[in-house]
Amino acid sequence: MLTRRQLILSTLAGVTSGSVALKGAKASSEHHQHQDAPKITGRAVSSRVITPNGNTLPYKMKGGVKEFHLIAEPVMREFAPGMSVKCWGYNGSTPGPTIEAVEGDRIRILVTNKLPEHTTIHWHGIFLPNGMDGVGGLNQPHIKPGETYVYEFTLRQHGTFMYHPHADEMLQMAVGMMGIFVVHPKEPEDPSVDRDFAIMLHTWAVHPGTYRPDPAVMLEFNMFTFNSKIFPATDSLVVKTGDRVRIRLANLSMDEHPIHIHGHSMWVTATDGGKIPPSARWPETTILVPVGATRDVEFVADAPGDWAFHCHKSHHTMNAMGHDVPNTLGVDQRGLEEKIRELMPGYMAMGETGMAEHAAHIDHMPGPKNTLPMMMGKGQFGNIEMGGMFTVIKIRDHLASYDKDPGWYAHPKGSVAYRL
Amino acid sequence: MLTRRQLILSTLAGVTSGSVALKGAKASSEHHQHQDAPKITGRAVSSRVITPNGNTLPYKMKGGVKEFHLIAEPVMREFAPGMSVKCWGYNGSTPGPTIEAVEGDRIRILVTNKLPEHTTIHWHGIFLPNGMDGVGGLNQPHIKPGETYVYEFTLRQHGTFMYHPHADEMLQMAVGMMGIFVVHPKEPEDPSVDRDFAIMLHTWAVHPGTYRPDPAVMLEFNMFTFNSKIFPATDSLVVKTGDRVRIRLANLSMDEHPIHIHGHSMWVTATDGGKIPPSARWPETTILVPVGATRDVEFVADAPGDWAFHCHKSHHTMNAMGHDVPNTLGVDQRGLEEKIRELMPGYMAMGETGMAEHAAHIDHMPGPKNTLPMMMGKGQFGNIEMGGMFTVIKIRDHLASYDKDPGWYAHPKGSVAYRL
Amino acid sequence: MLTRRQLILSTLAGVTSGSVALKGAKASSEHHQHQDAPKITGRAVSSRVITPNGNTLPYKMKGGVKEFHLIAEPVMREFAPGMSVKCWGYNGSTPGPTIEAVEGDRIRILVTNKLPEHTTIHWHGIFLPNGMDGVGGLNQPHIKPGETYVYEFTLRQHGTFMYHPHADEMLQMAVGMMGIFVVHPKEPEDPSVDRDFAIMLHTWAVHPGTYRPDPAVMLEFNMFTFNSKIFPATDSLVVKTGDRVRIRLANLSMDEHPIHIHGHSMWVTATDGGKIPPSARWPETTILVPVGATRDVEFVADAPGDWAFHCHKSHHTMNAMGHDVPNTLGVDQRGLEEKIRELMPGYMAMGETGMAEHAAHIDHMPGPKNTLPMMMGKGQFGNIEMGGMFTVIKIRDHLASYDKDPGWYAHPKGSVAYRL
Repeated sequence: MLTRRQLILSTLAGVTSGSVALKGAKASSEHHQHQDAPKITGRAVSSRVITPNGNTLPYKMKGGVKEFHLIAEPVMREFAPGMSVKCWGYNGSTPGPTIEAVEGDRIRILVTNKLPEHTTIHWHGIFLPNGMDGVGGLNQPHIKPGETYVYEFTLRQHGTFMYHPHADEMLQMAVGMMGIFVVHPKEPEDPSVDRDFAIMLHTWAVHPGTYRPDPAVMLEFNMFTFNSKIFPATDSLVVKTGDRVRIRLANLSMDEHPIHIHGHSMWVTATDGGKIPPSARWPETTILVPVGATRDVEFVADAPGDWAFHCHKSHHTMNAMGHDVPNTLGVDQRGLEEKIRELMPGYMAMGETGMAEHAAHIDHMPGPKNTLPMMMGKGQFGNIEMGGMFTVIKIRDHLASYDKDPGWYAHPKGSVAYRL
Repeated sequence: MLTRRQLILSTLAGVTSGSVALKGAKASSEHHQHQDAPKITGRAVSSRVITPNGNTLPYKMKGGVKEFHLIAEPVMREFAPGMSVKCWGYNGSTPGPTIEAVEGDRIRILVTNKLPEHTTIHWHGIFLPNGMDGVGGLNQPHIKPGETYVYEFTLRQHGTFMYHPHADEMLQMAVGMMGIFVVHPKEPEDPSVDRDFAIMLHTWAVHPGTYRPDPAVMLEFNMFTFNSKIFPATDSLVVKTGDRVRIRLANLSMDEHPIHIHGHSMWVTATDGGKIPPSARWPETTILVPVGATRDVEFVADAPGDWAFHCHKSHHTMNAMGHDVPNTLGVDQRGLEEKIRELMPGYMAMGETGMAEHAAHIDHMPGPKNTLPMMMGKGQFGNIEMGGMFTVIKIRDHLASYDKDPGWYAHPKGSVAYRL
Repeated sequence: MLTRRQLILSTLAGVTSGSVALKGAKASSEHHQHQDAPKITGRAVSSRVITPNGNTLPYKMKGGVKEFHLIAEPVMREFAPGMSVKCWGYNGSTPGPTIEAVEGDRIRILVTNKLPEHTTIHWHGIFLPNGMDGVGGLNQPHIKPGETYVYEFTLRQHGTFMYHPHADEMLQMAVGMMGIFVVHPKEPEDPSVDRDFAIMLHTWAVHPGTYRPDPAVMLEFNMFTFNSKIFPATDSLVVKTGDRVRIRLANLSMDEHPIHIHGHSMWVTATDGGKIPPSARWPETTILVPVGATRDVEFVADAPGDWAFHCHKSHHTMNAMGHDVPNTLGVDQRGLEEKIRELMPGYMAMGETGMAEHAAHIDHMPGPKNTLPMMMGKGQFGNIEMGGMFTVIKIRDHLASYDKDPGWYAHPKGSVAYRL
């Protein structure tokens, strides 16, 4: 396996790593490998919530009960063009499709296990009978490969909840098994929101040159995703000026994520524990989303433009990079470069003046296979130099459609920082 | 020393590690090694608070002053059967016994140092004269081995506080020196609580095959405890349906812990800074407890059952495991297994389909000595596959006694998820 | 490069490491190396806010506009005597000088780039035109070396904000580019504060024996600073008994920091998103400051004394130390010591009884060059055994001047913990 040190050396040098597979081992074949996020075309999809880069789970009405069907299975997820990851998820996707229902609904969820090991599902935050709570061994038997289990309960609350396994939990969440579960209130909300987004935060360890998340990693993750996508493959959030916007943030990773909005401040209006009373709310530009929690944040989009929206831990808006490598900043590598080139033809010294040049060289400098550059994205003014948990909220005075990306913002004359 | 990589390889393979002691070194003898949590039988123990797997410090009245006596000393703590750790604590226990007193009390605390190096005690969160604050060098001389120091002050507030050293602080806390200090209000609370628990959160680096927490580790901890116990050795929290329950959470580890309740939502009612005004409270299913802080959480136990209560960082409900090892998920190791078996007789390939099989093999596959399996616990439906910071809140309509574990929940017919 | 294991071994043994420079490489020359925190003597410095160990940026009035000039450049920062670090910052300092202005002001900020790579500045939390938001590539072109850019906008809010690059952001923040931006309210505050401090929290990876922060490190930082200083070089916060004190905490590191006050509790009154409504405030002794956020905390200094004020993550009040080394606690190293001394003359075994002896030996045991001992500081009662994010709030009934350190607190007779 490539160490991180070796990776950044090879990245710095533009050298492609060789195979990193275990000697003597071959990839096992997996059934049910789907390409990511297939369009689901069932009837009766309730889809008031937009899941960027994702979709909503359809249901069928059966005798007054809304019946959903989740299929736990291996899925291939393209984090961004150039990098596809062998994950586990639901119904061909990670995160699994968003479940939407209404307070008071009686729901039935069939869970079919097409994984190679047993699983269960815990309905995180939802009040339900103890035997429906999904902790394998404690509340129910495990769902073995090939089996289908039935969960059925009545929704007695509303809010943003989650679903995830509670069986070999650490591994199954590490490889992508999770989804958002929205229960809409029975009575209309006041004020109602114009745009309602749902984003699952996750972190992964996909070692450079490999395809499979490493479930044993506890801290040194290298991929940081919004709905299992990285910038610039993350969908923009398209909004009209004056819209009241809700973003439902959910976190099943191993770290708190401070999610930051530009040009606005936001208020947390609910957690997975319920509504926050208005007297207890306060404004933030950065919402710290704890692990195992959801945060509904709301703001009025009063400033048109292209506003960054991202995790503020700076390494979480980077892609795979070495974190334990010699520090080349400020080091004149010219003598070094020639010596290394004798051993490694094509070696190119980088990093003396910073890392921005990496973004500039990505087009002609290959890295390890299935591994994206550390920084990506091009805007109307040049390289954006981001990756990971980053997207753009595009607020426009006029929009033909919410469903079409409006392109880059046309700044009013004289409103852009300028060279003296 | 075994690296983590070596550990998981040996764990995966069922190979027991040899001795990891430093060559040429022998364990030093330690005085005052107690078995963990001895029963304290002094008079006048105020014990309104339950410290699961722990106890409360007795006191004596002396001329209107409540006098307590803390003895800082090495202690042996059984984290769970099969793993005992050489810690430092107070009065034979880690965490030290919970101190309970009442607002307005004049208290005197004698602190005797039976450690091999100096110490002090800081009374975290408590308003007191500057010379009683316990920062060695700044507020008082250090307490040398063999010495006894006297702290005396009047309690001018109520709430959940902590005590811990402020001398070689990083090391002394890393090996278990800490306790909870509850000051009850002078006036009865409204509403009062029926059950009142106190849990200290902590993280440890006990390298596989060793007995002594490694104080130099900053991030890569491998043991995660409630009152220095891991599941399934953690006491269940026994509660009657309808009880108002308070859980006092305290954190002196190196990481925030998001503590999650199943089937209920909770409200934080106080911190170590004081009561949270009712207008400022909000509901959560997961309470993020910062380092160096306490959180009093309250909920009404309105749903009978066996409800999981745990840290939601998934690695914190696992025991010692390797975090930096080759990823075997999805790897057909059959060819590999035979080759390794030529070198290591008894080697057994594991991990191809996930990690759940580890929980199933623990009975016949030995790991390194004094090292527990990654996942443990058996419930009425099979392996619970948890460890670390995990316990069960057992809520029952009828209870013979709070002091007796009621066994597993008897689910009403038809209320358990079932196989189709 | 020295590994952390090698470092602590050498630290434990009192052996100085040799050069850790890359072979074949030489340090590149850097223009504009300033000594840290020069006195800025321009006119019209608004300085209601005290930046401990720092200063405030002057401005000039030009036709009704307050014009500031920030110069992005390499700076040498002395973290404490004995350790100087090659950082990047603004106007000769890291953090850059605090910007102070008033709600309603029209401001113009010239930004000159004297770094070896391009940069931009993002005005974190401030409502402004999208083209002034500073995300390179997205909102404006990058500012190339040698160029000066102009930002101009009207301040429509008040509070504690930040400024930092949004170009090669991870690297540029890792080496110190950040500052605090205070906008005072137009109307007087009620209640007003008597003392108003601003502290930037940061974490650095300065490998022992080196001078340059390593920007590739994500988690294993080893230096933890208040305004880029470590204890005991951190300025004390001098306060009169009864003063209402505000401390503006800002965090652009990679980790949440729980900042703890002794002897008092504090209330968070504002974030970078705005004022917290009084109904939503609650008391804490430890404020968790998320990454990418500010916290205004207030308290009344009602207890005279020398009160510790520090991050409560215990490793964050330590300086560079090894985190992945053999655990010597409880190990009788006498046999080992002699064997090692045959190979390494002068080797001295340490750590058997704890780490406090390290603080006692620092005067005569050299460590690696440009590397401070793990624990430092001497108080009136002996070694304080702290480092990193630690300072002292000195509260006095009588003060000749806020600008002069009043020395150690004179405790009233009988108010200090005493030996029995």
